[in-house]
Amino acid sequence: MILVNGQQASTVDVLDRGLAYGDGVFRTLRVQDGVPLWWRDHYAKLAADCAALLLACPDEAGLHAEVCRAAEAGEAVVKIVLTRGSGARGYAFPDAQSTSRIVARAPLPAYASAGAPDAITARWCTLRLARQPHLAGIKHLNRLENVLARAEWTDPAIVEGLLRDDLGAVIGGVMSNLAIMSDGNLFTPDLAECGVAGVARTRLLRGAARLGIPIHIGRLLPDAILAADEVMICNSVMGLRRVARLDDVTWPSAGWTASLNTVLYEDVD
Amino acid sequence: MILVNGQQASTVDVLDRGLAYGDGVFRTLRVQDGVPLWWRDHYAKLAADCAALLLACPDEAGLHAEVCRAAEAGEAVVKIVLTRGSGARGYAFPDAQSTSRIVARAPLPAYASAGAPDAITARWCTLRLARQPHLAGIKHLNRLENVLARAEWTDPAIVEGLLRDDLGAVIGGVMSNLAIMSDGNLFTPDLAECGVAGVARTRLLRGAARLGIPIHIGRLLPDAILAADEVMICNSVMGLRRVARLDDVTWPSAGWTASLNTVLYEDVD
Repeated sequence: MILVNGQQASTVDVLDRGLAYGDGVFRTLRVQDGVPLWWRDHYAKLAADCAALLLACPDEAGLHAEVCRAAEAGEAVVKIVLTRGSGARGYAFPDAQSTSRIVARAPLPAYASAGAPDAITARWCTLRLARQPHLAGIKHLNRLENVLARAEWTDPAIVEGLLRDDLGAVIGGVMSNLAIMSDGNLFTPDLAECGVAGVARTRLLRGAARLGIPIHIGRLLPDAILAADEVMICNSVMGLRRVARLDDVTWPSAGWTASLNTVLYEDVD
Repeated sequence: MILVNGQQASTVDVLDRGLAYGDGVFRTLRVQDGVPLWWRDHYAKLAADCAALLLACPDEAGLHAEVCRAAEAGEAVVKIVLTRGSGARGYAFPDAQSTSRIVARAPLPAYASAGAPDAITARWCTLRLARQPHLAGIKHLNRLENVLARAEWTDPAIVEGLLRDDLGAVIGGVMSNLAIMSDGNLFTPDLAECGVAGVARTRLLRGAARLGIPIHIGRLLPDAILAADEVMICNSVMGLRRVARLDDVTWPSAGWTASLNTVLYEDVD
């Protein structure tokens, strides 16, 4: 089911600023037995991303009801897109802004289905992310870098591509965040200048803290990835997955991903 | 009139990748007496931008017919948006790509109407553009930087904001390209790392060459702007305008803008 501003629909206004400029944000949630997982974190992130773009965020209860309605039943993904609504031509905000809401159910992708392996193959992308502190961390609709990076490979055995910024620091995957374990410590890239700070990453850091694992958020170079005991990627659809292969480099399991994936799904607040 | 894939419509598919990721390009043309100006240059730029994004560009004759139909009569602006069409969720290109075409007429903005002054007021924006060589120069749909920069001011007397990159080089206006005249030479920013290389800029450089003006495309720092004999901005809707004021700095006319604006409209090929 697809809801546009609360009504079942399959189209949006051609003058929507989400289409014109990518002027909006989005979220992708996993649905289990018709229930959207991690809702509180998703809504908090949506509200923060809206605030960063000076966009009015819909109220939580109303949006939750729409997500539950679109989720229907069973296993699925629900995508929420919020845009600055329709407006006259030109970059200036419309005089009367009204946030548009698109809530759409989609099937669970193969890489996140029940039978998918818990360890994946990744590659290095050649495209380097631009550093833009005003947009870093936000899951906004300007995703051409991700589209071009994802177009670098077609081999279905490769689940994810790892991205660096123009200075060579590792930022994350095309559709996921990255973390590594080294000597019992968790390291994950700082996302102050580029990348998306996803909800699964937030929950991973929270869960690792509960397990007493020291956490380091900072600049990570490719050498640190290659030297890690375990490399992991995460997003809200697949949870946490171990990277078993990165181009020609392989890792055996060091046992961290399974335990961290468990705490990812714990709601203890 | 708005045409979506050749049909009169006011909506697009909610799953269009232009909305999901800003996965597409656009053009804004001026229409005079129902005729789209500078069509050959606009189509050439559209084809180049599509190629840069690995997007199939519609054939020229068919698109021209749609633009003329949407243009109707009189003075107007026509915007062309091309997207990678609809697709399943996920950054990967759809298996069967089909470029979507949106051709929409809009009224001429006040700053470009017949009565608008030929000299304008501009300001410096604080937002710095990120440098991304893979997207630089392309008029793609990822325009959140422009949206946020345009949101820095509301004073209707200010027509344009000037943008620098993160290293301090001047790149252009939020909706225009920039050129300056100094000692009889024309200088305009190199756009290899960010900015949009617009059709008016291309025509300005061609016209200046015809006038025998030496042209320099390179790195321009704010000091060079402030020391210029004449500062100019251009786009396809307003043509060339002189910047008479930039925050607290003012310039009298040095006479260049009027003659250069004339050659901008000459088709001599």
